[in-house]
Amino acid sequence: MAELIHEEAVKQNIVLKMGESVEAFGGSEHVESVKTDKGEYETDLVLVAVGVKPNILFLEGTGIKISVNGAIQVNAYMQTSIKDIYAAGDCATQYHRVKEKDDHVPLGTHANKQGQIAGLNMVDVHKTFKGIVGTSIIKFFDLTLGRTGLSEKEANLLNIPYGSVTITAADIAGYYPDDKKMKLKLVYHKATHKILGGQIIGENGVDKRIDVLATAIFHSMTIDELLDLDLAYAPPYNGVWDPIQQAARRVK
Amino acid sequence: MAELIHEEAVKQNIVLKMGESVEAFGGSEHVESVKTDKGEYETDLVLVAVGVKPNILFLEGTGIKISVNGAIQVNAYMQTSIKDIYAAGDCATQYHRVKEKDDHVPLGTHANKQGQIAGLNMVDVHKTFKGIVGTSIIKFFDLTLGRTGLSEKEANLLNIPYGSVTITAADIAGYYPDDKKMKLKLVYHKATHKILGGQIIGENGVDKRIDVLATAIFHSMTIDELLDLDLAYAPPYNGVWDPIQQAARRVK
Repeated sequence: MAELIHEEAVKQNIVLKMGESVEAFGGSEHVESVKTDKGEYETDLVLVAVGVKPNILFLEGTGIKISVNGAIQVNAYMQTSIKDIYAAGDCATQYHRVKEKDDHVPLGTHANKQGQIAGLNMVDVHKTFKGIVGTSIIKFFDLTLGRTGLSEKEANLLNIPYGSVTITAADIAGYYPDDKKMKLKLVYHKATHKILGGQIIGENGVDKRIDVLATAIFHSMTIDELLDLDLAYAPPYNGVWDPIQQAARRVK
Repeated sequence: MAELIHEEAVKQNIVLKMGESVEAFGGSEHVESVKTDKGEYETDLVLVAVGVKPNILFLEGTGIKISVNGAIQVNAYMQTSIKDIYAAGDCATQYHRVKEKDDHVPLGTHANKQGQIAGLNMVDVHKTFKGIVGTSIIKFFDLTLGRTGLSEKEANLLNIPYGSVTITAADIAGYYPDDKKMKLKLVYHKATHKILGGQIIGENGVDKRIDVLATAIFHSMTIDELLDLDLAYAPPYNGVWDPIQQAARRVK
């Protein structure tokens, strides 16, 4: 899937430098160059993308339990390990329904849900956070990159026996004007056929299929059951079999 | 919801004549006018849209069981009432999962599923048709009209106690350029809060929400459970709460 992103970057005149380690920044008043183990590059602006970690320094000595990626461990009620102390959002853990364990995925959707649930529980309206399935989406120039559930890499790390199927499909009926191709990968449990995850890259209609897959994964659907879904069909919106159903049909 | 369709028609310079009964067509070699109980209109072309009915004349005397709207009654294996005779597609019934009874919705998606299932069962690969939820979509100039599940009218006819909520929401994050408004109605069971159906009209992103709702209804989700879905969020694709979640939050 990464190949398509590289292609788009090249198409947009981005020069990619892969497998180089940054060693130093050069410049006097502001950064003017980046030195790596393979060369030195002039620059106007540097963006350092190294992930996100909760700032929990102020919790030192409180005994509050910290968990995966340094996030504050919460239960489904957003309760921390200390009575009457709640945590929610980017600083807290999220239960991952597919991994079946706590994870740390600091996204606005989870923060909103968890914040609402923490607030309700504080005032004795008991509601639980049902967990995440690992959905995210990003726009990269003309491409949309979406994912939900587990990647093959994640399935591997969890020692889940998985199969995967990758197809290229049109976002709308192939005979309707301006159809765009999308690349779609489904990852499924080899024994149970339960859908583990999906990744899609394309120009249009990626978000729709990710959201349907996210809903399917929320309900622990199998690959085979995807074929039973009654999805909206008319040529400007889809083919008779949605791309996720087309992919599911390839699985034996 | 119909008001929005009328507005779009007027915007597209269509003159609507409502509540008039067609009495005759005029013209010599081809239709040149339409006479109604309220006037006469010149015309170049006439489209008569009065619904679809299966052509079952050739089945007369076979004893094959005919059901709703004159469609051939089939079970989940696509078997008719006569041994070894299968039917599938626009001529056959479809089990409606929300109505919990057979229906006749002649759409390409159902025909494809049923045809595959009939063929498999004929060669002793046993697969069942899991039913429809009543999804359909249509493009009307710049508008998309989508529906799934039951309308209020259908819920009424079935004597199901229902509630409904209607909202106007943006298809993408409200602060992102070119967001479009959609009007969204959710119909739900008053006692159980089970989602009965949804109707959406808008310029963009209607098909996505209809497909998520169709998947939710397939799984008999409640309005409240919609809030738990981990849908893809990034400003070019959605707000933090998807429009269907925004609607669900309005239900007390």
